[in-house]
Amino acid sequence: MGAVVHGRVERIVQWGDLDALGIVFYPRYYEWIDAAAHAFFDQLGLNLSTLWHNRHIQFGLVHSGCRYRQPGRYQQQIRIITRLTEVADKTLTLGHHIEDGSDGHLMVEGREERICIDVSDAQQFRAISIPPDIRKTLYAASAG
Amino acid sequence: MGAVVHGRVERIVQWGDLDALGIVFYPRYYEWIDAAAHAFFDQLGLNLSTLWHNRHIQFGLVHSGCRYRQPGRYQQQIRIITRLTEVADKTLTLGHHIEDGSDGHLMVEGREERICIDVSDAQQFRAISIPPDIRKTLYAASAG
Amino acid sequence: MGAVVHGRVERIVQWGDLDALGIVFYPRYYEWIDAAAHAFFDQLGLNLSTLWHNRHIQFGLVHSGCRYRQPGRYQQQIRIITRLTEVADKTLTLGHHIEDGSDGHLMVEGREERICIDVSDAQQFRAISIPPDIRKTLYAASAG
Amino acid sequence: MGAVVHGRVERIVQWGDLDALGIVFYPRYYEWIDAAAHAFFDQLGLNLSTLWHNRHIQFGLVHSGCRYRQPGRYQQQIRIITRLTEVADKTLTLGHHIEDGSDGHLMVEGREERICIDVSDAQQFRAISIPPDIRKTLYAASAG
Repeated sequence: MGAVVHGRVERIVQWGDLDALGIVFYPRYYEWIDAAAHAFFDQLGLNLSTLWHNRHIQFGLVHSGCRYRQPGRYQQQIRIITRLTEVADKTLTLGHHIEDGSDGHLMVEGREERICIDVSDAQQFRAISIPPDIRKTLYAASAG
Repeated sequence: MGAVVHGRVERIVQWGDLDALGIVFYPRYYEWIDAAAHAFFDQLGLNLSTLWHNRHIQFGLVHSGCRYRQPGRYQQQIRIITRLTEVADKTLTLGHHIEDGSDGHLMVEGREERICIDVSDAQQFRAISIPPDIRKTLYAASAG
Repeated sequence: MGAVVHGRVERIVQWGDLDALGIVFYPRYYEWIDAAAHAFFDQLGLNLSTLWHNRHIQFGLVHSGCRYRQPGRYQQQIRIITRLTEVADKTLTLGHHIEDGSDGHLMVEGREERICIDVSDAQQFRAISIPPDIRKTLYAASAG
Repeated sequence: MGAVVHGRVERIVQWGDLDALGIVFYPRYYEWIDAAAHAFFDQLGLNLSTLWHNRHIQFGLVHSGCRYRQPGRYQQQIRIITRLTEVADKTLTLGHHIEDGSDGHLMVEGREERICIDVSDAQQFRAISIPPDIRKTLYAASAG
């Protein structure tokens, strides 16, 4: 149940985000949706640094993807809307919409599938079931 | 017909590619497969800078995605094997395998779908059919 | 005369800004002071994209440097205060203070020396004297 | 005494290294000289990851700077020549020359001053004297 939670991050496209055509170099979008994911977890009370240090858990990437609809330009104001679209035993999926800040048109659709990993051994991460208390928080926030 | 062409790029994971867990920060993989795509086009005689300046054409991104199988680590030697897996009227698809340089195990599977765009008007790019001569070169190199 | 103008940009340190020690990877600071420089020029009515497209002028880098006093950490709120510290015939110097957002302690002192260049010929940039109207705007904003 | 050791790293300027003017975005040079520093330490038998994990030591940045002489362009082959120019009690200085790979002209002069830090406590790094055995290795490699 619970109300669906939306993350929302705003930013301005910088000179250093552009390629030689004057549009956003696409790996930058992934940097932004990764940051949006971190902000979203934090908003749910699941700060990823705290999870790491206190419980030796991270949500690592299994798959990521972006569909590009319209290029970003210099000093364009954009916003990233993040939703939790799926929660499974070990994995969860985040959907990110990157939108123009003025008229709201969709520029990029991003998607991250993340898996719960035990990072106690820094050299050998291990996939685990999402712990019940965290799963409960995730379900409450889920759009699914 | 023609022989299938494989691009091959090698690199070493740098300190600046790592995140706080000591593994490669995932947007870096996209920087590397983008560079591998440019090297692959160049290898086919389709230098993207030349195409841009002489024919006002680029192959822009429609969609990209990566599946992560094993994290990259400090100073790990890796190689990126690039294949052209599909050619359509306006679009083409590149498959990138990022492999460990020593034993060849697959670390990341990347995919880029690119569309042929006319960039004559820098403010308004326009999708076009891939010109016949370029299509011919692409077919000859295609793994499909 | 004129009042001294200070640029001010705020941001939060992201996961992707960190290195394997969990502190900001230092080239990131240069990305941020470059963006702060662009914001500062924009604030003076000297939007760098407009200068480029309308007057074929840019302020390119001659020298940059940073002194590191305290490392940035995950989700730390920081601000960048930018001042124009010197204006010469062809060059200007920006001083950037990166400060902690909560207690204001100085983390990084950055410095950029930029030169006015004519970018009409994309293959051969040429240093020129700062045009009088732009110089007037710069003097009015200068802390020197 | 000992022979002066030069680090040497080669790379090709990638599309993603360029800004909207089609020249290298300057923070990228710092990424490259940081990587060149790591390669140089490794060449001296002072692998920074090994130093960190086995001896809880790093060489953190105190100051960095670059002088830009000529912009880097798409697919330009460059090389970075690294020298140890100074060794003091706690600090050392690296000089990096970024040169064109074909005719060797100097493009960027970089400089890093690094300080020996004890990283045992991840939250509170502490400057220390360079341990005698490491200092000996550094002196032998020093150009000073």
